[in-house]
Amino acid sequence: MIAVYGMSASGNCHKVRLTLDLLGRRCEWIETDSAAGQTRTPAFLTLSPAGRVPLLVRDDGQVLAESNAILCWLADGTTLLPADAWQRAQVLSWMFFEQYSHEPYVAVARFICGWLPDDSPRREELPRLHARGREALAVMERHLAEHTWFGAPSLSVADLALYAYTHCAGDGGIGLDDFPGVLGWLSRMQAVPGIIPMPPPPGLRNTD
Amino acid sequence: MIAVYGMSASGNCHKVRLTLDLLGRRCEWIETDSAAGQTRTPAFLTLSPAGRVPLLVRDDGQVLAESNAILCWLADGTTLLPADAWQRAQVLSWMFFEQYSHEPYVAVARFICGWLPDDSPRREELPRLHARGREALAVMERHLAEHTWFGAPSLSVADLALYAYTHCAGDGGIGLDDFPGVLGWLSRMQAVPGIIPMPPPPGLRNTD
Repeated sequence: MIAVYGMSASGNCHKVRLTLDLLGRRCEWIETDSAAGQTRTPAFLTLSPAGRVPLLVRDDGQVLAESNAILCWLADGTTLLPADAWQRAQVLSWMFFEQYSHEPYVAVARFICGWLPDDSPRREELPRLHARGREALAVMERHLAEHTWFGAPSLSVADLALYAYTHCAGDGGIGLDDFPGVLGWLSRMQAVPGIIPMPPPPGLRNTD
Repeated sequence: MIAVYGMSASGNCHKVRLTLDLLGRRCEWIETDSAAGQTRTPAFLTLSPAGRVPLLVRDDGQVLAESNAILCWLADGTTLLPADAWQRAQVLSWMFFEQYSHEPYVAVARFICGWLPDDSPRREELPRLHARGREALAVMERHLAEHTWFGAPSLSVADLALYAYTHCAGDGGIGLDDFPGVLGWLSRMQAVPGIIPMPPPPGLRNTD
């Protein structure tokens, strides 16, 4: 059986859990609190050179890092990753978009609001993070004006990757009311059996 | 024939050019200066919702965005992308690492030093970008202590993706002398016929 080191309240980890659940794959989930330094211990750093969760470990001890690479490996050969090369590339395109243009803003805003104290100087980053996060949501909104899902004709790992931090963008103070297409897509996602919201951050404050 | 909108002095575009060259694939290269706003015109934004290069366009008009997704599509079925699912996932893992933990620091430092004026307030970002860029290089160095390439037993698109901004990290003021494993890997890369350095930024200054 595979093992996954993950933090349940992290979107990058939650997307791995959702993929496992949708595929009906069992795993040993090893809760690992990166906010408390558990990914920076010498033992963890020998497993994961970048010191990050999620981290997948196979029975033979081989490891796989990076959430979206884990999703692709789990989904390989299933309906969650298209067999057609062009569609698969489109799915990958949205997954790279998620990690480059979405997560660094939407997830980081949520981290600042949900984990750091009210007087953290990092709160000064929020206006910029909100602006860039809204730019990413606007790109999604334009795509959803003409498509039902991201990158494939049916639900794929691109949707799971983008769902992770989009459905809780409000945790970081980014409201979704201006993005009706995104809200409709979230409703379609949440109608899929197995798609569940992520647990809230420990210090969630209502910043909307 | 495919067309690629790209800026020759951008690493994200250069990696596409290298992949095309290594695969012996012809394309129409449409030089597009994102630093001069050419990716923000209404015409370009209808092609690319995120307004970025590189952008690949097929004969039938379908487009593919995100450099590393383009690399995967071009390399699909070739030796540059492993057929084995686990190895392919490891290649993807390094490509997501490149976009999340390397490019936002090494490439942005190069952009600030190579395109912005000497008195740009963005130069204040450089110490942080250098620190984070060196963290990414340290992760690569640890990997190269035990491996020849990134993610596969032979040259893959992961190496091409990481080569793009690593070989010119000095343009942004990040020296590689502390990373002998990285320097050795760059030498191996540059011994591969078709691997050529990227053109320098227009306003390159020696910040080493």
